[in-house]
Amino acid sequence: MSNLKIGLFGYGCVGQGLYEVLLKSKNIKAEISSICVKQKNKKRNIDTSIFSYNKWDILNNPDIDVVVELIDDAEEAFSIVSESLKRGKAVVTANKKMIAENFRALIQLQETYQTPVLYEAAVCGSIPIIRTLEEYYNTDYIQNISGIFNGTSNYILTQTQQQGKNYEEALHAAKIAGFAESNPTLDVEGFDSKFKLTILLNHTFGLSVLPKQVLNSGIQNLNKTDTLFATRFGYQIKLLAQAYKTDKGVAAFVLPHLLRNTHSFFHIYNEFNAVQVEGIFNNKQLLTGKGAGGFPTAAAVISDLSSLIKNYKYPYNKLKQNDLHLDNSETIAIYLRYNKKEIMNQLKFEKIYSQFEQENHTYCIGEISIKEIIKADINKNKEVFIASIELPLYQGSDLPVKTEQILSIH
Amino acid sequence: MSNLKIGLFGYGCVGQGLYEVLLKSKNIKAEISSICVKQKNKKRNIDTSIFSYNKWDILNNPDIDVVVELIDDAEEAFSIVSESLKRGKAVVTANKKMIAENFRALIQLQETYQTPVLYEAAVCGSIPIIRTLEEYYNTDYIQNISGIFNGTSNYILTQTQQQGKNYEEALHAAKIAGFAESNPTLDVEGFDSKFKLTILLNHTFGLSVLPKQVLNSGIQNLNKTDTLFATRFGYQIKLLAQAYKTDKGVAAFVLPHLLRNTHSFFHIYNEFNAVQVEGIFNNKQLLTGKGAGGFPTAAAVISDLSSLIKNYKYPYNKLKQNDLHLDNSETIAIYLRYNKKEIMNQLKFEKIYSQFEQENHTYCIGEISIKEIIKADINKNKEVFIASIELPLYQGSDLPVKTEQILSIH
Repeated sequence: MSNLKIGLFGYGCVGQGLYEVLLKSKNIKAEISSICVKQKNKKRNIDTSIFSYNKWDILNNPDIDVVVELIDDAEEAFSIVSESLKRGKAVVTANKKMIAENFRALIQLQETYQTPVLYEAAVCGSIPIIRTLEEYYNTDYIQNISGIFNGTSNYILTQTQQQGKNYEEALHAAKIAGFAESNPTLDVEGFDSKFKLTILLNHTFGLSVLPKQVLNSGIQNLNKTDTLFATRFGYQIKLLAQAYKTDKGVAAFVLPHLLRNTHSFFHIYNEFNAVQVEGIFNNKQLLTGKGAGGFPTAAAVISDLSSLIKNYKYPYNKLKQNDLHLDNSETIAIYLRYNKKEIMNQLKFEKIYSQFEQENHTYCIGEISIKEIIKADINKNKEVFIASIELPLYQGSDLPVKTEQILSIH
Repeated sequence: MSNLKIGLFGYGCVGQGLYEVLLKSKNIKAEISSICVKQKNKKRNIDTSIFSYNKWDILNNPDIDVVVELIDDAEEAFSIVSESLKRGKAVVTANKKMIAENFRALIQLQETYQTPVLYEAAVCGSIPIIRTLEEYYNTDYIQNISGIFNGTSNYILTQTQQQGKNYEEALHAAKIAGFAESNPTLDVEGFDSKFKLTILLNHTFGLSVLPKQVLNSGIQNLNKTDTLFATRFGYQIKLLAQAYKTDKGVAAFVLPHLLRNTHSFFHIYNEFNAVQVEGIFNNKQLLTGKGAGGFPTAAAVISDLSSLIKNYKYPYNKLKQNDLHLDNSETIAIYLRYNKKEIMNQLKFEKIYSQFEQENHTYCIGEISIKEIIKADINKNKEVFIASIELPLYQGSDLPVKTEQILSIH
């Protein structure tokens, strides 16, 4: 068989990783024919004759079989992917935002033009979660999927909890270490995790929703009192994406989560990602690995390329089977730390287990529906930190707070 | 499509789990037509009209499409599997010993009769490692695979290290908890792990060897001084199956391993299994889940059944690509605790870092080739405990042994 000819869009850290891996590979019959980039004058580490500055050079090149899309701009990415599929060019992409926001359209395009799109690299880098969900968990027993989908946030949270840094210091450390971008909003506010969760909802439950329908709040407002609270009660804070079946459908959300050392994610530190799939019969399955970085993501792209060589496409069986709906009426237990009392009027709690007020730490633990949190548009409010929480609390022996209020929870 | 008709061999805990899961499933088009068991007079929890006591009832029944083989006896299992394939009946089996010992023959039978055998349930129960290796890690970048493949041993080791039990007490606890059989030899002496490792060598490196070529030693001789030593130096002891590329091929062995809290397996406790795959580009991938038990194993069988419905068979690409050999000349670092000095003459160490002698604890830390350990036939020797070890040692502050000898290691 002749080599697969790749047209590559984007030559950032993943693109460069891919280029290097393909050069070194023996068993992958694929080569990069052309690389389309935006900036003509940027210094490149390889012979520049391979670069093109016009997307149509690749899209209209009949010799190119596969387009690998690794650019940032989701809108432009969708345009490139659509035009590729229309021309019968298979696509491998790592663009989670583009996929999440255009999932139904991508299904439609794949059907219409009988050309596949693979995107393992878009969710948790090198962890083969999409393939596993499609090929292995193809029965109707999955109850629950959750994960640490964002390495940047997990790195920051590890720094706050292990090194005693505050949020700003930890964010700075993440930037120095190359794990956070100059504008970290998508990562730290839970959007990146939400895009990935939205994609996985399709592959886990056959549930197609738009990212904007799904609750996300992040770690950007975490302060030292939150970290202290977590430590005192034996918790770690992780930014989790969670989805599980309810009586009415599927609850799905991205929130910081206070979890104990019995939780599978307790020991997932730094830039590592993890996904847990829980079924009725298979118990808990945990997959862990590096979620980002040039080589891990390139490795996922390579796996997709070699699957394309074998004519693989996602079967999307669950989309055909299920009629589950997003259940934002689900009630969840949360920890809410706030400065101004007004927030307690804004958020309609169903139960309040405990309210605690001290000079520098005012918080409430209670139950509230997902849709009430969405309504309060909490991401815009700099004065609150909200996290889901494992209850009940257990009191530590060195607890410096008024314990009778905490104990009222039990 | 009409339902897949299953002939089931064996009705132990996995068989019963499978029966129950299939009854409850909506999306799996498969049903159990007949169950072949040995004992006619045993009390059964379902209508006995489904049972047969003669294997040919199933093998010669043209209505049965698939044979699910879940019996203990490896020899009889291979006979059932061979006869099934000869009759064009696809096979799902969980019999690791049978598969490991007959791997090449099973490949041959599958080719000759163009009928697949799937066996995800044979390795780490519900963890989809074989499928992942076949479908996802299909490139030539895997450097290393290792795992906790035996839940019984891991449960026992957890009991010794967390509860302070000695080996016999921990084994008893494992029996009470249903994790150890009355004769635990295969589990605790590393044979079960070795069968699984032997199977995975084919799917990881395209390397086919017989189990008897691979070193295994287990935890059966573990005593309190070993546990104490591990704890003092910050180790945990886990029974690991390990395989990695060397200059000359692939080193593979099953040994207890002294690992530190930076190791991915440090927090894998009790009956849990874990597999780690390490590649040049994808970094470390860890899969964790319950490795045994009726439902987890049945879940793996179900996944294989639904793959059969989609005409899936293992591509075995690596077997076609690679010409790697088993490298038993590889040298590994070990901890050896012994009673009689003769063992030190028997085992030809390449380097000795430290020898320590005290009334109740005599041990040596050094480097030795795998083939020298095999030659010493250490499993038969009740007076030694051998484990691979992460070096260098770090001294604990409360070390009660003669430290100058330990420190000579650095």
